[in-house]
Amino acid sequence: MAKRSFPLSKVYGLLEPGPVVMVTTAHHGRPNIMTMSWHTMIDFEPPLVGCVISNRNYSFRLLKATKECVINIPSVEIAEQVVGCGNTSGANIDKFETFGLTPKPAARVGAPLIEECFVNLECRVADTRMVARYCLFVLEVIKAWKDPAVKHPRTIHHLGRGSFMVAGETIKLRSKMK
Amino acid sequence: MAKRSFPLSKVYGLLEPGPVVMVTTAHHGRPNIMTMSWHTMIDFEPPLVGCVISNRNYSFRLLKATKECVINIPSVEIAEQVVGCGNTSGANIDKFETFGLTPKPAARVGAPLIEECFVNLECRVADTRMVARYCLFVLEVIKAWKDPAVKHPRTIHHLGRGSFMVAGETIKLRSKMK
Repeated sequence: MAKRSFPLSKVYGLLEPGPVVMVTTAHHGRPNIMTMSWHTMIDFEPPLVGCVISNRNYSFRLLKATKECVINIPSVEIAEQVVGCGNTSGANIDKFETFGLTPKPAARVGAPLIEECFVNLECRVADTRMVARYCLFVLEVIKAWKDPAVKHPRTIHHLGRGSFMVAGETIKLRSKMK
Repeated sequence: MAKRSFPLSKVYGLLEPGPVVMVTTAHHGRPNIMTMSWHTMIDFEPPLVGCVISNRNYSFRLLKATKECVINIPSVEIAEQVVGCGNTSGANIDKFETFGLTPKPAARVGAPLIEECFVNLECRVADTRMVARYCLFVLEVIKAWKDPAVKHPRTIHHLGRGSFMVAGETIKLRSKMK
């Protein structure tokens, strides 16, 4: 995908609809991928994102150790890989290899971008004070990439137990909201 | 809508897809409604929800004072009212009256349910330690209601500046994820 730098001030519009995302981390040269749905915007600019990563996940350790990750947003075309990454642990396998996904170097963090995702958000951990109690990390997006050809991304949204809602039509209403 | 009690253990599947929600509060007998998109599940059961409510919102004060609210999930049929509630402040108007929405008494909290929403989640504030820094409230859902007739709700998902994605088709994949 031919991605371009994307303004940080508009990142909220990518995460606010609640897509399933894939979080990449890397430690000692070994990359990993985790599928995640529990995230929310916390502030517009710099974009702050709260996300809950269970301490039973391999990525929890990597994120705590490196304080860096990438939030990658997939669309329905790679839904099988998204679920595959959610069903397995990076403690045992190389998920990039297993699921045929392509790691690309990020600009500002050590974790890789997933080439097949139409959005990549390079993040550093901004606050760990809610990690002990809620496994809630506050991430700051420091660099964003988006494929400008993807106008109406068919993101997937987890409904639980293997059911996903696929993004439908877009409507426009007279909102004063940002 | 003929709503039934809904199991707390399944609440995550309603909020995880990232729908725009309407938060109701009430103080001194006066109810209010706020439109919100910045929320995430934090735990399965009891269901904990993190949500960011700006301290410039009238609802911020009501929620801090009463420590109770209802998260109501609308579908596209009432999108105009959802945006109307997002464009106005309860400091000046009665939003139920202005937008023709129907308040119904909740079972366990003082804030009203919005009858026209297919889901109502009665919540109490469980943790305010992230409010000062991030306006982030941790809510515990203590009672849930859902219209069982609504199988594939056409929820709306904010893309920013008045654009909304409407929930499309549902797909099923072999996921081991909860």
